Amino acid sequence: MSRQGRRGDDCVELDLRVRYAETDRMGVVYYANYLIWFEMGRSEYCRQRGFPYLELEEQGYRLVVAEASCTYRRPAQYDELVTVRTFLHTLRRRSICFKYQVVRKGSGETLVEGETKHLCIDSEGRVKTIPDPYFTHLARGLQPQPPPQNTHG
Amino acid sequence: MSRQGRRGDDCVELDLRVRYAETDRMGVVYYANYLIWFEMGRSEYCRQRGFPYLELEEQGYRLVVAEASCTYRRPAQYDELVTVRTFLHTLRRRSICFKYQVVRKGSGETLVEGETKHLCIDSEGRVKTIPDPYFTHLARGLQPQPPPQNTHG
Amino acid sequence: MSRQGRRGDDCVELDLRVRYAETDRMGVVYYANYLIWFEMGRSEYCRQRGFPYLELEEQGYRLVVAEASCTYRRPAQYDELVTVRTFLHTLRRRSICFKYQVVRKGSGETLVEGETKHLCIDSEGRVKTIPDPYFTHLARGLQPQPPPQNTHG
Amino acid sequence: MSRQGRRGDDCVELDLRVRYAETDRMGVVYYANYLIWFEMGRSEYCRQRGFPYLELEEQGYRLVVAEASCTYRRPAQYDELVTVRTFLHTLRRRSICFKYQVVRKGSGETLVEGETKHLCIDSEGRVKTIPDPYFTHLARGLQPQPPPQNTHG
Repeated sequence: MSRQGRRGDDCVELDLRVRYAETDRMGVVYYANYLIWFEMGRSEYCRQRGFPYLELEEQGYRLVVAEASCTYRRPAQYDELVTVRTFLHTLRRRSICFKYQVVRKGSGETLVEGETKHLCIDSEGRVKTIPDPYFTHLARGLQPQPPPQNTHG
Repeated sequence: MSRQGRRGDDCVELDLRVRYAETDRMGVVYYANYLIWFEMGRSEYCRQRGFPYLELEEQGYRLVVAEASCTYRRPAQYDELVTVRTFLHTLRRRSICFKYQVVRKGSGETLVEGETKHLCIDSEGRVKTIPDPYFTHLARGLQPQPPPQNTHG
Repeated sequence: MSRQGRRGDDCVELDLRVRYAETDRMGVVYYANYLIWFEMGRSEYCRQRGFPYLELEEQGYRLVVAEASCTYRRPAQYDELVTVRTFLHTLRRRSICFKYQVVRKGSGETLVEGETKHLCIDSEGRVKTIPDPYFTHLARGLQPQPPPQNTHG
Repeated sequence: MSRQGRRGDDCVELDLRVRYAETDRMGVVYYANYLIWFEMGRSEYCRQRGFPYLELEEQGYRLVVAEASCTYRRPAQYDELVTVRTFLHTLRRRSICFKYQVVRKGSGETLVEGETKHLCIDSEGRVKTIPDPYFTHLARGLQPQPPPQNTHG
């Protein structure tokens, strides 16, 4: 998941502690629950980029999920701290794609990776362009960065 | 939970199979999930008494939960079949109380018992009387029954 | 999802009614919950092919999820009946892949499609071959079928 | 919920942000989810009193829920910050009772109140005394306080 040409800060991190309710009889986090963490990750992404996702909904727009996928590497355990890293992967006028990494907080070990694709719809369910200023806020995370200044030159 | 003066059929039964997702690392059903089963039970209760609960919501009314309680006797296990028995306990113009029993389908052993109290509100959140014909439909389950005929007399 | 060379009956169907708890504030089923339905689907698949999945776990084996993906076409609504169709897609000695279709029960409209890949592990977490007789039970669903007899020839 | 004879610090607070997944089609937090928050509250209570609850389980003990109840005053909304206040209410050798208050973080408004009663069992499901040092850790939150000074004497 190299992110060439983008600042490292196009990734937003969210820490969370695994709930008992999130485990199953296998003793680890149930596989559907990572999608809930992804949702928390992108919610935090919006907030860090300048707006609560709730505000977009209050304007009558919704980012509905069109696709989701998840690769499970190691299971998360009850009570441990994990970090959800959310990356804005692609942003188009009517759609948006986020990528996610869930890592163990201490060791940084990757537990799960995933991706979600979203469409912007209005309250009638019609596909719409992501309205401003939200598009602009989101686009900021994707702007190509100037090459780092060599301050020793 | 004796139900003197009411027909046995004021109880509506719903069978369900325990999902993997409903268990936790203790290997049994997570305690909050029984409240989900109660909701399914009262939803089925309404349907059996003549209306889908959804219809009440479409008319602009909601039965919000004011109180819930649950007594846990034995845990339900993954993949087993359980029966949720829903009883209409009290019905007032603006409120309603359901009782529940979750039993193991084969043996009839009681696993969990519970109770929920609901208020009827409109879309503005104001407490309202339960509108007809829904009140009437529900009241049917509570009608005092004639004493059983002694057919051996 | 054409299933050339296989009988239609390699698909196992499970009906379920959408729970209130499964909806979110958008008014439709929350996107992670379809993965719970997929799990119910494959659990039913095993049962219909001759063994409860639970039995495999009791023998010390587990089918852990390695990958999951989901395409969302139309949202499922509270209280409607949906059918989860589970297909055994590929079966290898140590891994297995299921595909799923969630359709509206009345109309047959496709709501969601998905796929999960699983590894067989033992209680120490080591990848193992799927033990018999479970492998054989599962393989039955994949046997190439004789071409249909042309009875009009 | 007056707490006569106990220090104010027998309450442990945990902040959390409401997840999209926790809402239902009524637009607010689904009623069963508060029990999940209660569990997070008592988990945090143990941690603040000197041990992770996980450690107790690793020693072969479990605090199973025997009873739970909940009173719903105002609904929590998506994305808002709430505080879960957990109180150790009674501690006996083999059982324990927690009380909870969920309040809106900004205003302090009470949203939900609840209570859970737990039994200590071993891995065979037999009721046991809560082992030391866990009992002692928990008891600390309940130490009788000096009587309030009568400043008007």
